[in-house]
Amino acid sequence: MSLRAELTEKIVRLKIERELSWSGLAALAAGLSKEFVTAGLLGQMALPKAAAEAIGAALGLEPFEIRLLQEPPYRGSLPTAVPTDPLIYRFYELVSVYGTTFKALIHEEFGDGIMSAIDFRMDLQREPDPNGDRVAITMSGKFLPYRSY
Amino acid sequence: MSLRAELTEKIVRLKIERELSWSGLAALAAGLSKEFVTAGLLGQMALPKAAAEAIGAALGLEPFEIRLLQEPPYRGSLPTAVPTDPLIYRFYELVSVYGTTFKALIHEEFGDGIMSAIDFRMDLQREPDPNGDRVAITMSGKFLPYRSY
Amino acid sequence: MSLRAELTEKIVRLKIERELSWSGLAALAAGLSKEFVTAGLLGQMALPKAAAEAIGAALGLEPFEIRLLQEPPYRGSLPTAVPTDPLIYRFYELVSVYGTTFKALIHEEFGDGIMSAIDFRMDLQREPDPNGDRVAITMSGKFLPYRSY
Amino acid sequence: MSLRAELTEKIVRLKIERELSWSGLAALAAGLSKEFVTAGLLGQMALPKAAAEAIGAALGLEPFEIRLLQEPPYRGSLPTAVPTDPLIYRFYELVSVYGTTFKALIHEEFGDGIMSAIDFRMDLQREPDPNGDRVAITMSGKFLPYRSY
Amino acid sequence: MSLRAELTEKIVRLKIERELSWSGLAALAAGLSKEFVTAGLLGQMALPKAAAEAIGAALGLEPFEIRLLQEPPYRGSLPTAVPTDPLIYRFYELVSVYGTTFKALIHEEFGDGIMSAIDFRMDLQREPDPNGDRVAITMSGKFLPYRSY
Amino acid sequence: MSLRAELTEKIVRLKIERELSWSGLAALAAGLSKEFVTAGLLGQMALPKAAAEAIGAALGLEPFEIRLLQEPPYRGSLPTAVPTDPLIYRFYELVSVYGTTFKALIHEEFGDGIMSAIDFRMDLQREPDPNGDRVAITMSGKFLPYRSY
Amino acid sequence: MSLRAELTEKIVRLKIERELSWSGLAALAAGLSKEFVTAGLLGQMALPKAAAEAIGAALGLEPFEIRLLQEPPYRGSLPTAVPTDPLIYRFYELVSVYGTTFKALIHEEFGDGIMSAIDFRMDLQREPDPNGDRVAITMSGKFLPYRSY
Amino acid sequence: MSLRAELTEKIVRLKIERELSWSGLAALAAGLSKEFVTAGLLGQMALPKAAAEAIGAALGLEPFEIRLLQEPPYRGSLPTAVPTDPLIYRFYELVSVYGTTFKALIHEEFGDGIMSAIDFRMDLQREPDPNGDRVAITMSGKFLPYRSY
Amino acid sequence: MSLRAELTEKIVRLKIERELSWSGLAALAAGLSKEFVTAGLLGQMALPKAAAEAIGAALGLEPFEIRLLQEPPYRGSLPTAVPTDPLIYRFYELVSVYGTTFKALIHEEFGDGIMSAIDFRMDLQREPDPNGDRVAITMSGKFLPYRSY
Amino acid sequence: MSLRAELTEKIVRLKIERELSWSGLAALAAGLSKEFVTAGLLGQMALPKAAAEAIGAALGLEPFEIRLLQEPPYRGSLPTAVPTDPLIYRFYELVSVYGTTFKALIHEEFGDGIMSAIDFRMDLQREPDPNGDRVAITMSGKFLPYRSY
Repeated sequence: MSLRAELTEKIVRLKIERELSWSGLAALAAGLSKEFVTAGLLGQMALPKAAAEAIGAALGLEPFEIRLLQEPPYRGSLPTAVPTDPLIYRFYELVSVYGTTFKALIHEEFGDGIMSAIDFRMDLQREPDPNGDRVAITMSGKFLPYRSY
Repeated sequence: MSLRAELTEKIVRLKIERELSWSGLAALAAGLSKEFVTAGLLGQMALPKAAAEAIGAALGLEPFEIRLLQEPPYRGSLPTAVPTDPLIYRFYELVSVYGTTFKALIHEEFGDGIMSAIDFRMDLQREPDPNGDRVAITMSGKFLPYRSY
Repeated sequence: MSLRAELTEKIVRLKIERELSWSGLAALAAGLSKEFVTAGLLGQMALPKAAAEAIGAALGLEPFEIRLLQEPPYRGSLPTAVPTDPLIYRFYELVSVYGTTFKALIHEEFGDGIMSAIDFRMDLQREPDPNGDRVAITMSGKFLPYRSY
Repeated sequence: MSLRAELTEKIVRLKIERELSWSGLAALAAGLSKEFVTAGLLGQMALPKAAAEAIGAALGLEPFEIRLLQEPPYRGSLPTAVPTDPLIYRFYELVSVYGTTFKALIHEEFGDGIMSAIDFRMDLQREPDPNGDRVAITMSGKFLPYRSY
Repeated sequence: MSLRAELTEKIVRLKIERELSWSGLAALAAGLSKEFVTAGLLGQMALPKAAAEAIGAALGLEPFEIRLLQEPPYRGSLPTAVPTDPLIYRFYELVSVYGTTFKALIHEEFGDGIMSAIDFRMDLQREPDPNGDRVAITMSGKFLPYRSY
Repeated sequence: MSLRAELTEKIVRLKIERELSWSGLAALAAGLSKEFVTAGLLGQMALPKAAAEAIGAALGLEPFEIRLLQEPPYRGSLPTAVPTDPLIYRFYELVSVYGTTFKALIHEEFGDGIMSAIDFRMDLQREPDPNGDRVAITMSGKFLPYRSY
Repeated sequence: MSLRAELTEKIVRLKIERELSWSGLAALAAGLSKEFVTAGLLGQMALPKAAAEAIGAALGLEPFEIRLLQEPPYRGSLPTAVPTDPLIYRFYELVSVYGTTFKALIHEEFGDGIMSAIDFRMDLQREPDPNGDRVAITMSGKFLPYRSY
Repeated sequence: MSLRAELTEKIVRLKIERELSWSGLAALAAGLSKEFVTAGLLGQMALPKAAAEAIGAALGLEPFEIRLLQEPPYRGSLPTAVPTDPLIYRFYELVSVYGTTFKALIHEEFGDGIMSAIDFRMDLQREPDPNGDRVAITMSGKFLPYRSY
Repeated sequence: MSLRAELTEKIVRLKIERELSWSGLAALAAGLSKEFVTAGLLGQMALPKAAAEAIGAALGLEPFEIRLLQEPPYRGSLPTAVPTDPLIYRFYELVSVYGTTFKALIHEEFGDGIMSAIDFRMDLQREPDPNGDRVAITMSGKFLPYRSY
Repeated sequence: MSLRAELTEKIVRLKIERELSWSGLAALAAGLSKEFVTAGLLGQMALPKAAAEAIGAALGLEPFEIRLLQEPPYRGSLPTAVPTDPLIYRFYELVSVYGTTFKALIHEEFGDGIMSAIDFRMDLQREPDPNGDRVAITMSGKFLPYRSY
């Protein structure tokens, strides 16, 4: 297990033991969203220094661990190429089913290129609905055109 | 190649030859979104009868093909488990990087359960931006709770 | 090994050492089935608080472990995509052999959609039979229709 | 594509063109269930002679094809080890999530052994439910004990 | 490493340290074959109580370990789907080369069905031969017919 | 599809159309077993000239095809590394479960080396049994010792 | 084989039959590099209209094929995830060996982010060398920073 | 984890704790590039003795570890065949998209052969650009011709 | 199937129909070994012009096919990463078993680097032996040192 | 990690710490080649008793470890089916590129059968060459014919 993966496991354990929440932890990182901070604490983003220090203090992390939170991690949060967890699999399924649709419609609207997964932000909210509340996710990624050269 | 995959390839060929667009074809299907109709034409959704007939007529499809468009397809639009196309890979990358974040935040907000990929809709738009326009995707899936029994 | 996987292993060890049974443990969780509780103790379901505490006390688990039993786990109980254990493989074989039959008959009866694996319950019983008793499994999953949008 | 796979594709095409149903075809096979006959027509079971002839006549199959329907097929109905179709994936997910639970409870009730996937029958029905109808599946497989020797 | 895998490793170590043999250990299990007992000690079969206790005493195992030997294990003795060890690979190769032949001849003799790998026994002997002794393996598995229903 | 795979498919089709049996075809090949000849007709062994000509004449094969039957084929009869067909899978399962047992017992009896899958013969018979007939397979492979050098 | 893959194969055949070169074909596409045009003709880039028409005329392609060359392709030029061709494998090997070095040095120089493979250009030249000429490749990709949000 | 992988992890930890940089460490290795030295410290190259000793002293490594740095490592820096980290994946994507282009153009310029990944050097620099700085990589590998024999 | 793979299949068919041998065909290519020429005819090497023309004439190939034989092919002669054919598998097994030994001894003798598979030649001969003739293979590949830079 | 793999790692560590060489260690095993002994020390061959004891004494191994060196190991020296280490990959590449050539030429010379990887020996030497020294490997494996039965 890598250094960062060990740290993620420690954070998960501390969060449960201290009965904390991801959004509560994110609230300690002024100006950052719960999505970005949670990803950072789960080992997928480099946290800004202030955020790492504030959250590290709240969790009682070691100085080395607080510094590690600020390093760009080796990304990839899943143990298998096709995820086994049902919640995460549904997102994989959307890629599998809608992948060529994403491609067709983005090319039609923007021309050849991609939606960036780097210059990207997302927001996850509860959408009240009389037939059962819904998960509403908005994603925004910069369009990056392929250019001929 | 399955019957439906052959039909998808035929539709792609006709669309290019006749210089049509996915949204133009979707406009023939009253009341349906471009996202749903494109997925149907790419072999991932069963089109309602009226939509299949209107678009089938516009493309000059055979009666059997128009009926085939209305059948639930064997879904999965990608030739490999990890997609090679860069545009589609970026969506896979989001699942890989943000998968555990999706899981953490949805469980925190809703409890144990998943976001449905069946009772689901999505919308893809251009988001103007002075630093380069962005792809804006909104997804809405019903939350389905695990229930003890 | 994740925190939850370590806990599963500990529970398996305790159950053998103390000569307990899964249905005996499940009986401590009022109102819950042996199927649900066993899945929870094997790290696949989040147990309700009362159940986690009653069983945790019986097994002598730590407070952190009792809380961990209530967390939605990263699901997936098998070490390989195709299971090697013969008992479990037979279920995989049923999916492999009858998969397209499930699909054909459910679509014929219900239209396009799926059987939910979330809003789902099952029951496993001994079916006496003069030619050798049988395993009888009944599954019930809500039908979720794909809807056009 | 194998001979049997080509025949399956031909049967699927004929069924759609002639607007037939799987249960309608199965009704031509006296004494056989819709589950068994559909699996046979989809290339996964060997149909008894009478069934093959009755259905073959209704579909207008060639004599060789009617004989091929009676041959034990090379089983396995899915193009990938992990199925991509959402309806079929849910069954795979049940194996992934509940696999160790099946194992624990069957061993507890029956001792060491397996549930046969050969001496097996199943039945798939609509279960009316005010919260949305459910798919009810009952499976019955002979328990086969491992014996020491 | 699972509890049972750790026990297997411990048994292998003890067997080497004490210069024991598999058939010598099996001889302690009255009425059982060397094939069955070795498979049990290698973590693939559940040993009967008397056998587990006799061998456990000889090896100096802990009470928990002796009980663990009697539990149905999660079977699968190989670290990869295609075995790398040449001796074991040759058996895999026989399946790869003769698989369709097994299928053709068993179906021709018995009709549709399988040879059970559960109601199964085998015997491995030295077959003296002037051109070099041979490994003689006899396998006997109950034929299980697919039945229509 | 390779030349030999096409020929195998043609032979399978002819055998069904003419209502022949594998053992009947093998009887045309004087002095050869049904196991070896069937493997040859299924594309896994090179048939001797006389056998290829006798069977080729009976099936009405072309001269090129009769010659092709005598060529060493690219062996491997299965479409996937882990076979999906239940009959064949059971043999794979035996390797998976008993692999390390084969290894332990052969090494104990013969020392370091392997059982040859080349200097190998096998015989498959029906073994009558009041509890249900059994498939009896005897395998005999030369032991090949690793030698130090 | 997809429509675009068939076109790629046709172009390769025409190029050999007519004894053309990739750089000769690229020279017909004013202002475009040999790297970009070759990638387009091999089915990996969408060619600008003028380039597709000039080269299409030179090769005698059909109007549909000329239009197809202008469509964004489903990218991925290799038949396996790990390439088998030695020339291409060496590039995969560089990623395998130097991957973590690329990551360490780019993060050190630029902070967290990636080198774009979309806003990217490259140039491949012969580098004369008395010990044997060398292949010189220069790559230039825009740095895209991860931004917190 | 191998001996060398443990050493890599230790070096990464020390570098973060002591707030060192890869180029700073490389500067201790007179005459060597930052690319080569970083790859060595990440377990992919054998460092020359002087470099290993200078850097080992700076990091406070044990004598065995300094010697280990000079051993040719078992190369391969990535945990999966297709890398999950986005920065590294982009390089894999370049191989996937441009692989056949590399092949076409190198063969056209040099004839049949490969670019060596052994007699190879590379340089990674910041390329200032008003639209956003770029990562500039130059690679130089000796061309190795296939020769007939 | 690629153009070159189709040509390989055609050559194999012609060789059998005309009862030719690989070494007989290689003898038509003055100065080239049977190993190199056979690899070329099997689609793995680019044949020199004279060789392609001489052999092409003998086999009655088309002009395009003769030119195709001179093109560097997309190498990789096997349909699966782990070969299923027993003869070829034995070579894979040698790599699997002796891989780390090759590495240890070559590094010990030559230092860090590799044996080239490009600047490589080999020779395959019968080695008479009273205990059964042997296959003798000699390989010679240039040692290519990793150099620091 | 298996018992034998741990021992291999320990031997590698001792060899580096004590600045020993593989051929130096092999010289302690009278009458054995450096290739065989190195493979044994790397966990791929069972060493004869005298060799294990002589080398074990030189390295200071425990009695259990010396006995373990004499056991037939679970062979397979590589962590992945396709090796990532460039030196070892080149041998895999030779199998991939020349596999069908090996097959064609061995069948042509010997008839149907294989080259044994068990009754096998090899020798690895430096071949001086003015253009750069070469690695010369000679392999000798007994030809084993398939026999009809």
